[in-house]
Amino acid sequence: MIKVAVNGFGTIGKRVADAVSAQTDMEIVGVSKTRPSHEAMIAQKRGYPLYIADISKKDQFENAGMKVAGSVEEMIQAADIIVDATPGGVGAGNRAMYEKFGKMAIWQGGEDHSVAGFSFNSSCNFADARGRQFARVVSCNTTGLCRIIKLADEAYGVKKVRATMIRRGADPGDAKRGPVDAIVLNPVTIPSHHGPDVQTVLPDIDIVTMAMIVPTTFMHMHVVQMDLANAGDKDKILRLIADNPRIGLVKGYTGIKSTAELKEYASDLGRPRSDLWESCVFEDSLSIVDGKELYLFQAIHQEADVVVENVDCIRAMTGSAATAGESVAMTNRALGFETI
Amino acid sequence: MIKVAVNGFGTIGKRVADAVSAQTDMEIVGVSKTRPSHEAMIAQKRGYPLYIADISKKDQFENAGMKVAGSVEEMIQAADIIVDATPGGVGAGNRAMYEKFGKMAIWQGGEDHSVAGFSFNSSCNFADARGRQFARVVSCNTTGLCRIIKLADEAYGVKKVRATMIRRGADPGDAKRGPVDAIVLNPVTIPSHHGPDVQTVLPDIDIVTMAMIVPTTFMHMHVVQMDLANAGDKDKILRLIADNPRIGLVKGYTGIKSTAELKEYASDLGRPRSDLWESCVFEDSLSIVDGKELYLFQAIHQEADVVVENVDCIRAMTGSAATAGESVAMTNRALGFETI
Amino acid sequence: MIKVAVNGFGTIGKRVADAVSAQTDMEIVGVSKTRPSHEAMIAQKRGYPLYIADISKKDQFENAGMKVAGSVEEMIQAADIIVDATPGGVGAGNRAMYEKFGKMAIWQGGEDHSVAGFSFNSSCNFADARGRQFARVVSCNTTGLCRIIKLADEAYGVKKVRATMIRRGADPGDAKRGPVDAIVLNPVTIPSHHGPDVQTVLPDIDIVTMAMIVPTTFMHMHVVQMDLANAGDKDKILRLIADNPRIGLVKGYTGIKSTAELKEYASDLGRPRSDLWESCVFEDSLSIVDGKELYLFQAIHQEADVVVENVDCIRAMTGSAATAGESVAMTNRALGFETI
Amino acid sequence: MIKVAVNGFGTIGKRVADAVSAQTDMEIVGVSKTRPSHEAMIAQKRGYPLYIADISKKDQFENAGMKVAGSVEEMIQAADIIVDATPGGVGAGNRAMYEKFGKMAIWQGGEDHSVAGFSFNSSCNFADARGRQFARVVSCNTTGLCRIIKLADEAYGVKKVRATMIRRGADPGDAKRGPVDAIVLNPVTIPSHHGPDVQTVLPDIDIVTMAMIVPTTFMHMHVVQMDLANAGDKDKILRLIADNPRIGLVKGYTGIKSTAELKEYASDLGRPRSDLWESCVFEDSLSIVDGKELYLFQAIHQEADVVVENVDCIRAMTGSAATAGESVAMTNRALGFETI
Repeated sequence: MIKVAVNGFGTIGKRVADAVSAQTDMEIVGVSKTRPSHEAMIAQKRGYPLYIADISKKDQFENAGMKVAGSVEEMIQAADIIVDATPGGVGAGNRAMYEKFGKMAIWQGGEDHSVAGFSFNSSCNFADARGRQFARVVSCNTTGLCRIIKLADEAYGVKKVRATMIRRGADPGDAKRGPVDAIVLNPVTIPSHHGPDVQTVLPDIDIVTMAMIVPTTFMHMHVVQMDLANAGDKDKILRLIADNPRIGLVKGYTGIKSTAELKEYASDLGRPRSDLWESCVFEDSLSIVDGKELYLFQAIHQEADVVVENVDCIRAMTGSAATAGESVAMTNRALGFETI
Repeated sequence: MIKVAVNGFGTIGKRVADAVSAQTDMEIVGVSKTRPSHEAMIAQKRGYPLYIADISKKDQFENAGMKVAGSVEEMIQAADIIVDATPGGVGAGNRAMYEKFGKMAIWQGGEDHSVAGFSFNSSCNFADARGRQFARVVSCNTTGLCRIIKLADEAYGVKKVRATMIRRGADPGDAKRGPVDAIVLNPVTIPSHHGPDVQTVLPDIDIVTMAMIVPTTFMHMHVVQMDLANAGDKDKILRLIADNPRIGLVKGYTGIKSTAELKEYASDLGRPRSDLWESCVFEDSLSIVDGKELYLFQAIHQEADVVVENVDCIRAMTGSAATAGESVAMTNRALGFETI
Repeated sequence: MIKVAVNGFGTIGKRVADAVSAQTDMEIVGVSKTRPSHEAMIAQKRGYPLYIADISKKDQFENAGMKVAGSVEEMIQAADIIVDATPGGVGAGNRAMYEKFGKMAIWQGGEDHSVAGFSFNSSCNFADARGRQFARVVSCNTTGLCRIIKLADEAYGVKKVRATMIRRGADPGDAKRGPVDAIVLNPVTIPSHHGPDVQTVLPDIDIVTMAMIVPTTFMHMHVVQMDLANAGDKDKILRLIADNPRIGLVKGYTGIKSTAELKEYASDLGRPRSDLWESCVFEDSLSIVDGKELYLFQAIHQEADVVVENVDCIRAMTGSAATAGESVAMTNRALGFETI
Repeated sequence: MIKVAVNGFGTIGKRVADAVSAQTDMEIVGVSKTRPSHEAMIAQKRGYPLYIADISKKDQFENAGMKVAGSVEEMIQAADIIVDATPGGVGAGNRAMYEKFGKMAIWQGGEDHSVAGFSFNSSCNFADARGRQFARVVSCNTTGLCRIIKLADEAYGVKKVRATMIRRGADPGDAKRGPVDAIVLNPVTIPSHHGPDVQTVLPDIDIVTMAMIVPTTFMHMHVVQMDLANAGDKDKILRLIADNPRIGLVKGYTGIKSTAELKEYASDLGRPRSDLWESCVFEDSLSIVDGKELYLFQAIHQEADVVVENVDCIRAMTGSAATAGESVAMTNRALGFETI
């Protein structure tokens, strides 16, 4: 059993902890929190040992009825590998601690590629993670782009990608961030940094990205256009997507045309936290123009798609699964991840 | 086993079907749908026999891979009791059909009191439902008001209620309704119709209500002020709420101050569809001014709080439980309804 | 003086009436409304004779203190030309009336090209409108696309256009339409109908468009990518935009990065109704990749950009100005349309 | 001519500057800004001398084409009185500077009462401002409450006020603040601090307030309930409101039922920046229950209602008008403030 600690039990961390906990070859030895909150209560209810960043706040936790297992440093020592899910920009500062105790660590996409020197995506570079001490699972948007680009590239060759990301302003549980009523160019410059981020995983892909933020909470939406090297076949691509364990096909007959309806469907399916771990390509949007231009819309659940990548990354680094296919199958099976 | 049909498998109907299905003394014999959709697919996945309003559309369903059990009339005949969860205003037209086949039926709060001549709330008038052919479960907002007013009235006597309802504009899965950026007085006149609707359940309560709609999807928020007949004790009321099986207390130490955080917490708890069947009173808001004026904020999950009331109403009408307390305990236990 | 009637005094109609009224060569002889409302009150305050669709409702208007000049048919007879700004789909039904009285008419983009057989944009086909009885001013989105495509095509030749439109869900004054929290693919299919609509004005342009709706009210946002025939020069294009009387350049040093800030700026400028009649290209977004791929973001004020096109179209059809340049200058000058 | 400086040319400051500039007895001698932005450009266009907080940034402004008149300290010296419209909490720190130069100053409601020791509202305590060096114009919400409470108190005596404020999350031009999809209790405790803030102006009023934030930008909405000392007459109160120069009556026949429609109406009226300087009481909401309980909805434009109060406060402190009535009439007339 691989002993996993989750440093930062927030939007991503709590999901990674639950996903790890559901696997047969790994277990949670601790999660960390900076202050008592409803998320700390959830850690207690799940039975995850709760470690805290500032041990002087132990009383605050205990007064709220929460048992403290120790400090974050103690948690690190108890683990084989740490999933660092602290807020973007904070994680880099933890590297010295992981090095000090000689532990493996995985960062999230909010950190720069340089924090680990290796950026991971199950579908693209699983084997390259083997034996590394450090890795970074790319962001939700980059993950979604990598999956579909890899699929198209293997089938037809991809000469150029142009992608626009229409991003959610805040997560559903976030009552502070906006915008309330605006479309925000983020960044206002073209191209955005997302293209180079895809290239940390797929260095040979020529890609131009653009991004904006809109007042919604449920999912991001991607407009993806790819120039293919060879003429593509729509039905074949739809089959490849349907067969891909990390890309779902939103069927036309469901009548689903929005992120709201898609999340409702995930909720109806009984998915934990209504999570969509797969990229969701809209069947009716997929189109090939002039033989070699592929267009599609895909929705990305920002809270969920990287969760399964973290589980795979643990296996890739520790050698607990031999291939991406094997790990992905194990991860999905443990989560009861059925097709949407 | 009480044979239950759910006429209208939408936002409320699908939840009632799942809640009925979880009980030990009742079962789903059928649900109805007007056209193939992602919700019809969910009915299939759950194994609920799928009946359709217009049998001439059978082909449409079958082409989408859904098996049709028959017409709605056939479903009615197979049931002991029908939960009518068709859209507001549609249900009244179904009464003749239920009468024709001599079946019991329960409508939702979108219909007028007169459709059934009896309006139900588990906490207030369970015993009065016994032996009736028809009943109406009051709306989500009225249900929430009835629960807290009844609690306060039993403890201290309620002389007057003033309540403002800040309502969500659309359900989370609804991608059409607004508003996008407005506070809408609905109605612009004061008092609103919600007070008289409370009086269909609690006829002796003096109540003035006001209502508006805001651009959010997760929950309604109520500002409730009650003039008490006798001086109230804050700690006692908090205990009564904590002990009430249908009212939850959002504890101050959770840090939850918004509907978004509250729904996130329900999601983290693993509640199906993140549902909050209980009214959610904010502990830190509850206040007694000048000894006899009680104030509080409560959040109401518009998709969920009436679901458990429908289950209780089935028992109340059929005599399957002797008391409200017994039925509520059965309903809650079957759902694994733990305290928030 | 060209006598202009505005049939439908709503979001577009009231703006066209004010813009026409500001010109020196045309005047408003009447506007129409179906029921008394705050917009009808505005017509009264402006001194526009108020005609009503259903003369039997005359009492309703008079009881609200509004003077009724007559029926819509009487208004048509009093005019030389009618701007039909009735809701999308309604206008087509008015064609017979305009024909009956032998009047010229202009429809909006909510109607099909076939209603007039000629679709108009000042920058593209002013001269072709001369002498026509009927014309259609294309929609706000199509207008915005036509302006920038024409500019690029004249400068470098446009081989292909790929454009994504992120559309506002409702106008600021609309308290009913949604969505509240969703990204809605509208349509879910690719390409959308907007490309062919551009081709009603610019038939030789190869264009693929995609569209979605988001929960905001202020403006649409376009992501435009054009394959140029000849290598483009960024500075030259920026100069062309700055010099174009119908395209504005949102300067980088203003710090404006969103539709909300842009509308605030228009409001601060003292523009009537904060209207942005120009397409608004973000200076910092304009980028040329690989020499021949032009990218940019432009924001489109859905309530305003077609208003000035209607004024120009009146002149184009009636021959009141000899060239597009002359008409555009007259229109802009009359509105005090200074550079953003 | 009273020489007025506006320290902080943002949402409130830019409006105060324009309103002061429109008066016949006062003039703008300078406005301040911390960095070049679209608002600084507006100051230039208006011809307001532009002073900057950090004179070392002079180059930044000049490079963006903006002329810098000097430092904020120089601006203070050039003025008779300063309207401090810096962000909430910043203004208090400027008091020493105003004292150093012996200047009069007015703060906004984002500062505590103690910053000035006197809180102002034109309708309530104009005369008490005479001769003071410092005053604070209360917040937009407190201003709106004071106006209507004063009106009711003078007519019938007010024994108790219960008011709920449903507040906008962000201003229309603010693309950062949220929430996107939540009702946020702010504060979660009852009563909120707004009641005591009303008492800084009207110390004898018994008032309980509650407040929340919702995802909208246009206006706040107040639910006001007052227990009257003497039986009230609805028609008389409506007349008093119609006659009050700072409270507007939203007539039923306009069909306006939301903040969105109300702002649209202000926009159609040609109000600068669509500003509503008056509190907006909805005629159809005003209701008297049991003879002595007054209920009403009023909408408050958070960006505008305090603007005219600042102008009056300048006159009250400097003695430029003898009475509130005289000043209010001057202010309104200069703005062309006609009845909504």
